[in-house]
Amino acid sequence: MQPEQLLARIRVVLCQTTHPGNIGSTARAMKTMGLRDLVLVRPKRFPDPEADALSSNALDVLGGARVVGTLAEALEGTVLAVATVSHAYDLSHALVTCREAAADAVATARSGDVALVFGTEASGLTADEVRLCSVSAWIPGNPEYNSLNLAAAVQIFAYETRLVAFADSPVAAEVPDLATHEEIERLHGHLAAVLEEIGFLDPANPKRLIPRLRRMVARARLERVEVQILRGLLTTIQERKLLSRPASANLLQKTGNQISE
Amino acid sequence: MQPEQLLARIRVVLCQTTHPGNIGSTARAMKTMGLRDLVLVRPKRFPDPEADALSSNALDVLGGARVVGTLAEALEGTVLAVATVSHAYDLSHALVTCREAAADAVATARSGDVALVFGTEASGLTADEVRLCSVSAWIPGNPEYNSLNLAAAVQIFAYETRLVAFADSPVAAEVPDLATHEEIERLHGHLAAVLEEIGFLDPANPKRLIPRLRRMVARARLERVEVQILRGLLTTIQERKLLSRPASANLLQKTGNQISE
Repeated sequence: MQPEQLLARIRVVLCQTTHPGNIGSTARAMKTMGLRDLVLVRPKRFPDPEADALSSNALDVLGGARVVGTLAEALEGTVLAVATVSHAYDLSHALVTCREAAADAVATARSGDVALVFGTEASGLTADEVRLCSVSAWIPGNPEYNSLNLAAAVQIFAYETRLVAFADSPVAAEVPDLATHEEIERLHGHLAAVLEEIGFLDPANPKRLIPRLRRMVARARLERVEVQILRGLLTTIQERKLLSRPASANLLQKTGNQISE
Repeated sequence: MQPEQLLARIRVVLCQTTHPGNIGSTARAMKTMGLRDLVLVRPKRFPDPEADALSSNALDVLGGARVVGTLAEALEGTVLAVATVSHAYDLSHALVTCREAAADAVATARSGDVALVFGTEASGLTADEVRLCSVSAWIPGNPEYNSLNLAAAVQIFAYETRLVAFADSPVAAEVPDLATHEEIERLHGHLAAVLEEIGFLDPANPKRLIPRLRRMVARARLERVEVQILRGLLTTIQERKLLSRPASANLLQKTGNQISE
């Protein structure tokens, strides 16, 4: 099943939302992650211009939202309902993190519809609402400031859900044209020669300069064109050097050998 | 180092934010995840009652926010700056996911201060702003609706960062003494001067040499002692150059400008 089809089976349920702006922000948060199915249980005000304004062109999600009278109605047809909570309820089911819940939701979406259920802004889900669900999930956060905005909580769940849904089909990343081992080695040979020619490296007493430079280059993970640029730079230095007089004793005092120790 | 101490070293930088409400929402998002250091680069309106209203009791974060004139100022003292982007910029540095960036940020916070940098609401970070950072990170989302709210993006980064900080403390790894933003910028200034002096860079026609070199340096994540070595090498080249005769026309033909294309 395609990731988009899995996400299409995951609905967001908002229970008794007080501020219509939060419904709009939720629609926006859902759409940024490819969720589209929004169900509203007894919202205080909906539809509402404030919801439209805050949806930021997620009006399609908002327009498709269903308004129902009870959480039970909102959960009709689902095979899994995840209660989002900020604390463990007495006698509630297992408490998992939102990341674990997202993995569960996506895996279960292969079998049928899934609901992510969010409570009212001020106090969250009631114990009765949590009991209608089959899993409780929380967002790890600052225990001293547990004031996550409703749409922000939806955003994090939607984000985690999308990551799981797309995990098996990673986004095509840019593939850099990396230099080969041999090209890097030739660069090191050229670099050492130039450092010696300009008096920065004393081959009789190299100390730790070469290993340091090798570590730097290894970390940079050079691309082929970058090696070409650096080789060109080294050649330019060599050509300048051939025009110069022999280095003075004074110059030789300031070497990389001293600096590297 | 304790997770809280690591989080205290990670600052959020907002560039030219248009809506003060987003600054308030950002402060709230940060505090829910234990981030506290907020830096504002030329906000349109701040302080502002709307920011206060939307901060939802994260007034301490808002009150401690520093307002600065440039991104460079905002990055002072940092050893890593993560640019948050919605697309890859031409010749920008490596593009990683926000999860990877969070792991990097927390690991690097052992060495020094880290910045998470967010652009303006309408258009995000400029190419110049991205170039001042050393990593670009994006939030995987719906490619057909890339309309993540600023505070929602901060929320996801802050969430990922907190998860990493509180994950089982990794095996005590070597903590590199990384160079600061200012030290790296001085290195770039010195490098550009030398490239120009030796005829490798034509300032009237720099093409893409400098961005390429910046990307290489960003990727290498230089330590302080490595910057010292490179500065010493540049100084040696300059001293050799002063001993040399003026470059011949022949020499000027082989420049980095040609090679870099």
